Order: sequence, then structure tokens, then C-alpha cells
Amino acid sequence: MKKYNFSAGPAVLPREVIEKAAASVLNYNNSGFSILEVSHRSKDVVAAMDQAIALVKELYGLSDEYEVLFLQGGASTQFFQIPMNFLNEDETAGYINTGAWSKKAIKDAKAYGKVNVVASSEEQNFNYIPKNINIPSDLKYLHYTSNNTIFGTQFQSLPETDVRLICDMSSDIFSKPIDVSRFDLIYAGAQKNMGPAGVTLVIVKKSALGTVSRYVPVMLDYRTHIENVSMYNTPPVFAMYVSMLTLQWIKDNGGLEAMAKRNEAKAKILYDELDRNTLFKGHSVAEDRSLMNVTFTGVSEEMENEFLDRCKKEGLDGLKGHRSVGGLRASIYNALEAEGIQKLADLMRAFEEEKA
Amino acid sequence: MKKYNFSAGPAVLPREVIEKAAASVLNYNNSGFSILEVSHRSKDVVAAMDQAIALVKELYGLSDEYEVLFLQGGASTQFFQIPMNFLNEDETAGYINTGAWSKKAIKDAKAYGKVNVVASSEEQNFNYIPKNINIPSDLKYLHYTSNNTIFGTQFQSLPETDVRLICDMSSDIFSKPIDVSRFDLIYAGAQKNMGPAGVTLVIVKKSALGTVSRYVPVMLDYRTHIENVSMYNTPPVFAMYVSMLTLQWIKDNGGLEAMAKRNEAKAKILYDELDRNTLFKGHSVAEDRSLMNVTFTGVSEEMENEFLDRCKKEGLDGLKGHRSVGGLRASIYNALEAEGIQKLADLMRAFEEEKA
Repeated sequence: MKKYNFSAGPAVLPREVIEKAAASVLNYNNSGFSILEVSHRSKDVVAAMDQAIALVKELYGLSDEYEVLFLQGGASTQFFQIPMNFLNEDETAGYINTGAWSKKAIKDAKAYGKVNVVASSEEQNFNYIPKNINIPSDLKYLHYTSNNTIFGTQFQSLPETDVRLICDMSSDIFSKPIDVSRFDLIYAGAQKNMGPAGVTLVIVKKSALGTVSRYVPVMLDYRTHIENVSMYNTPPVFAMYVSMLTLQWIKDNGGLEAMAKRNEAKAKILYDELDRNTLFKGHSVAEDRSLMNVTFTGVSEEMENEFLDRCKKEGLDGLKGHRSVGGLRASIYNALEAEGIQKLADLMRAFEEEKA
Repeated sequence: MKKYNFSAGPAVLPREVIEKAAASVLNYNNSGFSILEVSHRSKDVVAAMDQAIALVKELYGLSDEYEVLFLQGGASTQFFQIPMNFLNEDETAGYINTGAWSKKAIKDAKAYGKVNVVASSEEQNFNYIPKNINIPSDLKYLHYTSNNTIFGTQFQSLPETDVRLICDMSSDIFSKPIDVSRFDLIYAGAQKNMGPAGVTLVIVKKSALGTVSRYVPVMLDYRTHIENVSMYNTPPVFAMYVSMLTLQWIKDNGGLEAMAKRNEAKAKILYDELDRNTLFKGHSVAEDRSLMNVTFTGVSEEMENEFLDRCKKEGLDGLKGHRSVGGLRASIYNALEAEGIQKLADLMRAFEEEKA
């Protein structure tokens, strides 16, 4: 039986990427060595890094003003690395609070400068994206989380402001085209739409750097990694390589326009069933629904557990919701095939009929 | 023809580890999913992390006072994370300068407190380990680099002092038994003796933490990772898993005592030939020679290049020296088989005979 991976992250990767990755572990580019044991300064690894960077630039159509970095430490490291590099103590940054990840970013930023939380949806357990926000024009930057993995909400458009944007796109990176020119920095842990855990993508506008007066450790200064093309120290070679393969897969499958269309069609299958089915209820308000993480609850916890067991038996894996919201969560990233989502929707319908 | 990997890092891993790693990329523990796409909260990944931690504790015979962490960012991140967590601005830490990595650690530490460089071998291009060092007893800690990958020197014993030790063991971790009770913290990038690039081992004495007054970002506070068993955020799952397999391989092959004996015998093959051969000359003074990285030069650069070409043709790979020292470097970590080193020594002898 074919199995489908609905895990929120680390998450499903294209099967052809996995097969190429496994082959490289046994014998990398016919070198006779595993990719796990070759020098990061070797011709082939340098070429893979260059290719990964080029693919990010190509997919987002980046201008020469932007640099692409492959770092370590996850988005959680970016939470403090960003204010450390962008925010002086007497300056104010704006943050939109749309959930757990936003809150962590806000907490770290407060240690480096002033933070203005310009909007929050916390009072409704983050089931919507704040709109018509009053955003002061003198903010150093405005930080937001484009997609909220835990709560299943997603910004449908960029915040309306002239303030420079900084965004945690961990869970919807490469899922649709974006106007990157509005951003000073975009970051994303790889382990949803881009690759395995262990590498973090940073897209940064070079001219926006160098405005803080504090000491920034060499490893935390983005300019270190720009100058060294993400090889100041040993990079996470394999995670970067698998990300490169996934970026190539995105390109080969039509790029971000095609991903967006596919993701819209895939999400529609599930949201249509959610709207129809009397046993399940979505967490997010309709207009802010995420195309990446569909969060929903059943009429009772008992019923949810019964349904989760049934899913598992049918090869639908990783559907248990996050404890903050409970219930179920279907993460339906780029690489998850529509047939898996259809199978889940069909099972929801069959389950409702049985219970009727 | 069998090939041998003398790369300084990322470096040779046991073939059986590589084969298990490749299998896990295709199908992790018969889950039907790749290890690259399963949740870090899944039973199997949590079990692998627990097993990795348990193996480190067992191999070094750690007491309950010590915690084992698998982090990201490489040893280069530890260079600032250590003083940030251990050194107040008015306190002094001692550093022994034995090369490029020590210097980077010293540079970052100076931003957080006072640094006393108690000894240095820089005036002789780091070809020896300082001895009979005057170490003030009131230092917060004494930091040193146990093995110098670039220069091919290695501490043969622990520094003589009552000061608590902190050590960068990136390139000789798990190569021999160590009295860990002398240390407040030991750290190592995995990509030499432990696993692929992308994960950093930290062994830390819990009671030594919590003595600094500055703000430490959540992700940089070792206590965050202790409390969360290295899963505060998504860990580098695959790099950790391959490290676990390598630790298991070390255990299955007799543990650290056996590794030490093997490493001594392996290094002797090469150093004996170096001492005998008139065409090559070792960089390190004899008594401080590294059992991990053998650095040497030929009588001319032309001859070195000719020999390097010859090595490559014979399947001996990764022998080019670091630009700071030049010449050749044979990295002969745990997983490199003695037969590869014998082949290199034989080739050096044959080369000398040809040139005579």
C-alpha cells in the first residue's frame, strides 16, 4: 500500500529527490566516496552550493541586490540573529503576532531593541491573520510569519506598508511566487518545502546590512557568510545538497507559478470536504486558510482518535494536530501528491457516512 | 581499485555506517518513509537521539553531572556561545593559542570578557604544543584545542592546572579515552571522527552553567537544549542519526581504548616512514605529533605536486595540505583503515627510490 506523509516538518520530499539523495550517500557523483565524507572544498560540493544558490535566485527572480545563504541553526536562530544584525537599541521594529513562532521571534527581538507588536490574533487562538493594521512608517523593519504551521493560517498577500519587510517563510517558502523586492530578509528552515532538517535558507538584501553598532560574532554576521558563499565554516553539506535537488525538482515541475496552482488545487480538495463534512471543523477563518497546513478538529476527541487510527491503517500518516490546537493537521506541502489528499477527503466522507 | 579518503573533514566514515545511512534515506526503519521526511517527534527519531546521547555517555563513561547535546552551527558557533554562557565581562578566561581555530575562539571570547592568552606557539607557525605554562588559578576556565587539524599537532595530555577546562575536540573526539571530569565543556563538529557535517556535539557539566548575567538568546543557552533533550527546535536529524551509527560502530569495535591503540599503530606507520624518508619532512615537532592529522612537506612544491598526482592515481585521496602549512596532510581518523596508510607509506618509499 502506498503511504502518504502529512507530517508538518520534517516533511514529505519528492521521491526522485530521495532516490538521488540515497545514491549520493553511497557514491557521490561517481567519486567512489559518500557525499557524507567528501570535503566541502571539493569541486563537486562547491558546484552543488553554487547550483543551490543559483536555483533560489532563478526561482524567485532575484535581483543582484539579494544574496542567498545556506546556514545552520533553524529559523529559531534567525529569531535573534535578525535583531542582532538589523536593530540598534534605540530603534523600533514592528512584529505581527500570528502564533507560536511569531512570539518566539518577538521575545528575542526585545533583547536587542524596541519592539512594537503592531497586531496580534492571540485573543482568538490565532485563527486569523490581522488586517488593516496601523503600521508606523518609522519602523526599522516589519517582521511577520507568512504561514503558521501550528494554527493553519497564511497571509494571502504582503502586509500593506512602505516599511521594509522581514519574514519567516519556513512553512510556505517556494510554494508560490513572491515579490522579494519588498523584503530586506526572508528566512526559512528547510524541513518543509525545501529539504531535510539541518539547513536554513536566508535571502538578504546586501545594502540593508551593516547598520548596527553592537558587536556581532563572526558566525552571526550575515556578511561573513555572504563573503564566503556560505562556506565560512563547514556547511551542512548533505542537507544543502538535498535542498538543491528539491529546488531542481521545483524548477523541473514548472517553478513557483506551477507550485502555486497545484497547491491551490490540492488545498481545495480538503477545504471543500471540510466545509461539507459535519463531523469536522476547520480552525482558521475561511479567508486566511493556509494552503500548506490544514488544521481541523472532530466533534469529539474520541472520534478524532478513531479517525486518526483509520487514517494510519489506510497509509495516511502524520495527521495528528499540534497540542495548541488539537485535533488534526494535514500538512500538504509542494511534494505531497494530490491523490493522497483526495484519499484523505474520501476517507472523511466515508467516515461521516458510517457515523450517520 | 579501492580508494582511501585522507580528507581533513568532512572525512572518512565506516563503510557499514554509510550503507546503513543510505538505506535509512530510502526507507527508515521500515516506516516506508525516508529518514529525511519523518517528524523529529516521531518515536524512531526520538529513540535515535536517546541512543546517540547514551552512546556518548557510555563511551566516555560520563557521570550524571554531564549532559550531552547535539546542536547546529559547528565549532565556530561554540567559539562565541561558550564565552556568552560562561564568561562575565569582568571575568578572565585563559586561552592556549595553538593555531587557526584557537585564534578564532580567542577573537570571539574578547567580546564577552577578559581573555588571557596564557601560551602560544604562533612564533614557530604552530609546530608545537606549549608546555610548562603559567596558568593563573583564578581563570573562569581554560580553553584549548586538543588537536590542530591544520598544523598536525595534538595535546598528548591534559593541561596541568586546577582551572576548569573547556576544549575544542573537533578533530580528535572519540579517538581515545579522556578524563572528562576535568572539563566544564567539550565540543566538536561531527565531521571528522563522528559523522557528517551539520551537527555539533557538546558535553557540558550542568552545574557549571547559569553563572553569567547577560541576556543569552534562548537558542544559545545550553540549558534550553538540556531541558529539551536537543529537540527545542528541529534538530539536524540525519546528521545526528549518522553520528549515532558511527558511535555504535566505535562501541562495536572495542570503544575508545581500542580506537586509541589502533590510531597509535596507524600513525606509527606514517611517522616511521616520514622519519626515514629523505624526500619528506614532518611539520610538527616529534613529541607533539597528531595521531589524527599528519602534516608534512616535500623537498619542493613541484615534487609535492608530482607525488599528489601519483597518490590520486593510486586511489589515495584528499592529501593536499592546508595553505597555512602547505605540502601534504594525511588525515587518518578512526574510520581510515590501516591498509590505506600502509599504501601511502609504501608509495612514499617507492617514490624516494625512483627519485634516488
